[in-house]
Amino acid sequence: MSSTFGEIFRIHTFGESHGGGVGVVIDGCPARVPVSVEDIQTQLDRRRPGQSEIVTPRKEADAAEVLSGIHDGRTLGSPIAILVRNKDHRPGAYDEMAVKYRPSHADFTYDAKYGIRAASGGGRSSARETIGRVAAAAVARKVLDARHPGVEILAWVASIQHLKAEVDPATVTSADIESNIVRTGDPDAVGPIIEHIKKIRGEGNSVGGVIECVIRNCPPGLGEPIFDKLEAGLARAMMSIPATKGFEIGSGFGGTLLTGHEHNDAFRMVDGRVRTATNRSGGVQGGISNGEPISFRVAFKPTATIMKSQETVTSGGENTELQGKGRHDACVLPRAVPIVEAMATLVVTDHLLRQQRNL
Amino acid sequence: MSSTFGEIFRIHTFGESHGGGVGVVIDGCPARVPVSVEDIQTQLDRRRPGQSEIVTPRKEADAAEVLSGIHDGRTLGSPIAILVRNKDHRPGAYDEMAVKYRPSHADFTYDAKYGIRAASGGGRSSARETIGRVAAAAVARKVLDARHPGVEILAWVASIQHLKAEVDPATVTSADIESNIVRTGDPDAVGPIIEHIKKIRGEGNSVGGVIECVIRNCPPGLGEPIFDKLEAGLARAMMSIPATKGFEIGSGFGGTLLTGHEHNDAFRMVDGRVRTATNRSGGVQGGISNGEPISFRVAFKPTATIMKSQETVTSGGENTELQGKGRHDACVLPRAVPIVEAMATLVVTDHLLRQQRNL
Amino acid sequence: MSSTFGEIFRIHTFGESHGGGVGVVIDGCPARVPVSVEDIQTQLDRRRPGQSEIVTPRKEADAAEVLSGIHDGRTLGSPIAILVRNKDHRPGAYDEMAVKYRPSHADFTYDAKYGIRAASGGGRSSARETIGRVAAAAVARKVLDARHPGVEILAWVASIQHLKAEVDPATVTSADIESNIVRTGDPDAVGPIIEHIKKIRGEGNSVGGVIECVIRNCPPGLGEPIFDKLEAGLARAMMSIPATKGFEIGSGFGGTLLTGHEHNDAFRMVDGRVRTATNRSGGVQGGISNGEPISFRVAFKPTATIMKSQETVTSGGENTELQGKGRHDACVLPRAVPIVEAMATLVVTDHLLRQQRNL
Amino acid sequence: MSSTFGEIFRIHTFGESHGGGVGVVIDGCPARVPVSVEDIQTQLDRRRPGQSEIVTPRKEADAAEVLSGIHDGRTLGSPIAILVRNKDHRPGAYDEMAVKYRPSHADFTYDAKYGIRAASGGGRSSARETIGRVAAAAVARKVLDARHPGVEILAWVASIQHLKAEVDPATVTSADIESNIVRTGDPDAVGPIIEHIKKIRGEGNSVGGVIECVIRNCPPGLGEPIFDKLEAGLARAMMSIPATKGFEIGSGFGGTLLTGHEHNDAFRMVDGRVRTATNRSGGVQGGISNGEPISFRVAFKPTATIMKSQETVTSGGENTELQGKGRHDACVLPRAVPIVEAMATLVVTDHLLRQQRNL
Repeated sequence: MSSTFGEIFRIHTFGESHGGGVGVVIDGCPARVPVSVEDIQTQLDRRRPGQSEIVTPRKEADAAEVLSGIHDGRTLGSPIAILVRNKDHRPGAYDEMAVKYRPSHADFTYDAKYGIRAASGGGRSSARETIGRVAAAAVARKVLDARHPGVEILAWVASIQHLKAEVDPATVTSADIESNIVRTGDPDAVGPIIEHIKKIRGEGNSVGGVIECVIRNCPPGLGEPIFDKLEAGLARAMMSIPATKGFEIGSGFGGTLLTGHEHNDAFRMVDGRVRTATNRSGGVQGGISNGEPISFRVAFKPTATIMKSQETVTSGGENTELQGKGRHDACVLPRAVPIVEAMATLVVTDHLLRQQRNL
Repeated sequence: MSSTFGEIFRIHTFGESHGGGVGVVIDGCPARVPVSVEDIQTQLDRRRPGQSEIVTPRKEADAAEVLSGIHDGRTLGSPIAILVRNKDHRPGAYDEMAVKYRPSHADFTYDAKYGIRAASGGGRSSARETIGRVAAAAVARKVLDARHPGVEILAWVASIQHLKAEVDPATVTSADIESNIVRTGDPDAVGPIIEHIKKIRGEGNSVGGVIECVIRNCPPGLGEPIFDKLEAGLARAMMSIPATKGFEIGSGFGGTLLTGHEHNDAFRMVDGRVRTATNRSGGVQGGISNGEPISFRVAFKPTATIMKSQETVTSGGENTELQGKGRHDACVLPRAVPIVEAMATLVVTDHLLRQQRNL
Repeated sequence: MSSTFGEIFRIHTFGESHGGGVGVVIDGCPARVPVSVEDIQTQLDRRRPGQSEIVTPRKEADAAEVLSGIHDGRTLGSPIAILVRNKDHRPGAYDEMAVKYRPSHADFTYDAKYGIRAASGGGRSSARETIGRVAAAAVARKVLDARHPGVEILAWVASIQHLKAEVDPATVTSADIESNIVRTGDPDAVGPIIEHIKKIRGEGNSVGGVIECVIRNCPPGLGEPIFDKLEAGLARAMMSIPATKGFEIGSGFGGTLLTGHEHNDAFRMVDGRVRTATNRSGGVQGGISNGEPISFRVAFKPTATIMKSQETVTSGGENTELQGKGRHDACVLPRAVPIVEAMATLVVTDHLLRQQRNL
Repeated sequence: MSSTFGEIFRIHTFGESHGGGVGVVIDGCPARVPVSVEDIQTQLDRRRPGQSEIVTPRKEADAAEVLSGIHDGRTLGSPIAILVRNKDHRPGAYDEMAVKYRPSHADFTYDAKYGIRAASGGGRSSARETIGRVAAAAVARKVLDARHPGVEILAWVASIQHLKAEVDPATVTSADIESNIVRTGDPDAVGPIIEHIKKIRGEGNSVGGVIECVIRNCPPGLGEPIFDKLEAGLARAMMSIPATKGFEIGSGFGGTLLTGHEHNDAFRMVDGRVRTATNRSGGVQGGISNGEPISFRVAFKPTATIMKSQETVTSGGENTELQGKGRHDACVLPRAVPIVEAMATLVVTDHLLRQQRNL
């Protein structure tokens, strides 16, 4: 089950960084939903390496092939298999990594767990694995378009190290975010962040930050107490993305500084609908969406791969040093934005389908 | 699946706050593990209402009855059903709540989802539901004792509103935490926190805070990439606890302020084992435990129930006011400590059993 | 997962023959479905011991208590827990069985699997476990009544050893079947079968037979290729009932004697609906219901418990003899009829809910 | 979940008859198991069309490509994706079938369920889907070889229409079965069966029959009561194979003609092991293997595709006639033998891994 996500709209990802390819099988997608290869490719292009001057220059076209489940542009109800070939192999670049554990990478733990490891490119622990998720979410998005076209799911870079972007979750648009290579919604933050990432990269170092996400126009009633509360599903989804270290929804950790009287969201009728005056709940109460915007934040640690010399050990148990090389992101957040959106889209789509039983 | 947690050690909880009772069915527990009713009762007593002067005075003995699956003090391998009867019904106290949605509670969202609601006591959304989890975790703990006796799982109150406790995750003991009714590991923080909770309660208000948890002596190799990474499972587990708004592991949100060079945990050999010089990873790398202490923090919002007048709406769609009454916790954290430990215990036990296939 | 059945309407049974009780937790039941305790009790009474002169005289009232999930006669959408206490303990009667493996019972295999066993009454392997299934199916039946009231699910005794009943699956009614203690639909077969069971019982022996079941007015489109084809789900469901040794649908094993030309069911339009001229498919084609009656047969071996002396071994590995005693059914089929119906009801209800995603 | 099979060794198949290809993703395979592409190809060749004069002449090389999860000849513990391209498209041959429902095929029911259908080649309902299962089982076989090398799983043709083969499940070998194109273990039956299939094919007709399977040297203790009893899992597995109509284990339907005294399998000690004098239980008691050979039989109806004119209806609801054409099997059983073995292998492997938690 480890590579499976979702209860009804259920995805199974596969693939290592190097090898035949990566991809996904989607089982449980409703039939007769219009989906084209372009719908999938558009999203893959957003997470593709080499897309801008502040991400890894690794060249991969990441072209999606639909193997099954879609016929004449519509889903069949059968499993949808999508394959993206691996193209730009440079196994030689990883020879040193085959024996030296990269600090804060998964090399040691994969060996500890499996007793074997596909060293080149990080194998299954590579962020390349997220291709399957993004492809699956592109299909999920079409399910939403067909059944709940108003649901908007937008993520953006909220901070890079100490540099913060000021973005209003209520009004930010996809165009705002895609207008800049940082993928943030604050035009004033773009320049400083690009400059900072370039400087950090020039030093052979790396940075992390926070991605914020909002789900607007989500109907009330989504989420399945107890263990599949909406925030529990979102937290699991986000913490399954490589390099994430934290998740908070609504008021989050900051909310612990308020009293109950300050924190509670008063209900009031607005245009015949139950609304809340504030949204410290982040659109979720008791694990179920309340119709307000669902807003959450995800912490990404600085990229583990750096171009500096680091202390480490060999797989044989000897202390050694590792000098980083290869082509990597000094900051993953611009490319992680579509991954956060993808995981949120998968969660929402699955819960919409799950909620059908009560209708 | 909404009330199911775990893949091999799989629990199914049931029960509303008022009604026949609450409980759990555990399926997949290994056979021949010694478990007594006392093992279960001891843990239930830690989350019981009425246990101290800073928690709700609601009186419930919360006595566990084992209905099946344990025979002569040992597990049979068959489902273990545990029932705790509800005793202290005061349905009358909830008459007003049946028609007025309590702000930041689950009243409205349950209605939105199910079109029906057991109003008294919050029904299924009551924290009373966690009894099943704590009982199941008491059994899981015995599985650990039988197979991995060294694994220690300890949680404590790290902060209440602005009041912080200074606790060293490497050395804090269960005795330290249980020595005070706050359940924190910092003796200097106990007095001020008790005083603060009493003051807040006196004002009819409430507070939240942060609970920290450490898992020590966890073997490397636990966690199942991709979607069942250890941190993803812990995040889901914690965010399924009522009133939680955030989860972070290792360096968490604070780690986004560091560069990769500052953040990476250098590997080194210590006593023939691979160890890390620092532990910003929080004991997990690539979704798999690395043998270092697993440390994470969970944000709890201030209790939604307060004794003040609040704006709200009726289930019929009219604006109104609600004057809080009833017996509730002004601060849930002292009673949430065993719940955090319980969920962590369930995650670790399940992953230990899952990892067997690779051995 | 071993005691879990269903994907959306998901049941978890628990309980040993002797001990606190047996029961079930249903998760995923739609909200707002009218269900009373009487609905459940009526079905339990049909499988209850002591109900007639041809079944075991073991006295158990088998009174159902609903612990959760139903409020004011309607489902809440939360888990429905149902408990039936064990009453008529006679552990002493099983002392010999604790050390001697009963032939063709589960005593040896439970020891082989779990290394421990609740000897009295067969423990978890007792047919008493089916109480949870019958209770859950009574709730499922109410879901059908609310959403697909025309679906009829009827089972009857088709044969007892060599004695066959002539029953027309198209016209047999519940009243026909319940009119006699054999639970068959052929009045002429009732007398001879009762006489035969009494004779066999008088000899301390036992008999088995075949139960046939028909699902009428099932809408087309149920069943989930590949592995959850409707017949695959029914086969699993039936083969999980104690004492079953075979399952066949439509033409079954007899169909292997026909050629394709003889066997194929021609399609034709009848009253504007696609119908088949014959029904050798048994209402299922390609794993999906086609709207014709779904008809299948289940083989039950003769009861393993007999009142004769039998060769066996002890748990310590010594050859010995066992003299049967206690109160058991010389023929389980009259009481198995409601169990077959229950399992069929669970399968159909779950598939109706699963099919919603395509609507 | 519909295309998912297994709890720990979990497979997800995908693919339509025509389109990009068919295949499987295996999740949960233990790490470090030696597997080569040849191991997989050898099994695929046994189910391949065009392999002998009595099966369909459709030409497909069915060459397996391993996309992920196997590195340097050993499993990585990550998902193993296997793809087989579709080659021999003749969509034109199916034009008529796109509008006329083939009797006793899945054309109508797929339309009824999904409201859409990949008409050519039967789409997802094609037996070509079983390629993924056979490939996955080839990997499962290697898991058995690594951990339980003695387990033998053999299937053979037990009858074709009225022609029966005499085969001793205790002694039949793989070489016996593979020595003839019928895949039966009785040399005397081979000639008559070949002759009969050719005659039936010459008439444009088809035949079915029974496949028998034995699992020898299976350790006691496999199977998970209640709903995952070994026979329940085998029944589901077998009834998920296209064209199956019945399943029986041990004494099966014939056993209903015996009394309990005749049917019970006496226990006795043999060479220090608990054995049974007879094996009417078919190696399974109470849902758990008892160490005796597990033997079961599966009924296959005659192939639905015949070269005769048949009454049917169009997807538009008009009565019409269909004249069969194309290249199909007059008898699927020789090619179904490896599929039966594959499904049995998947069941046994999964249960061996599940049983680990009790060890």
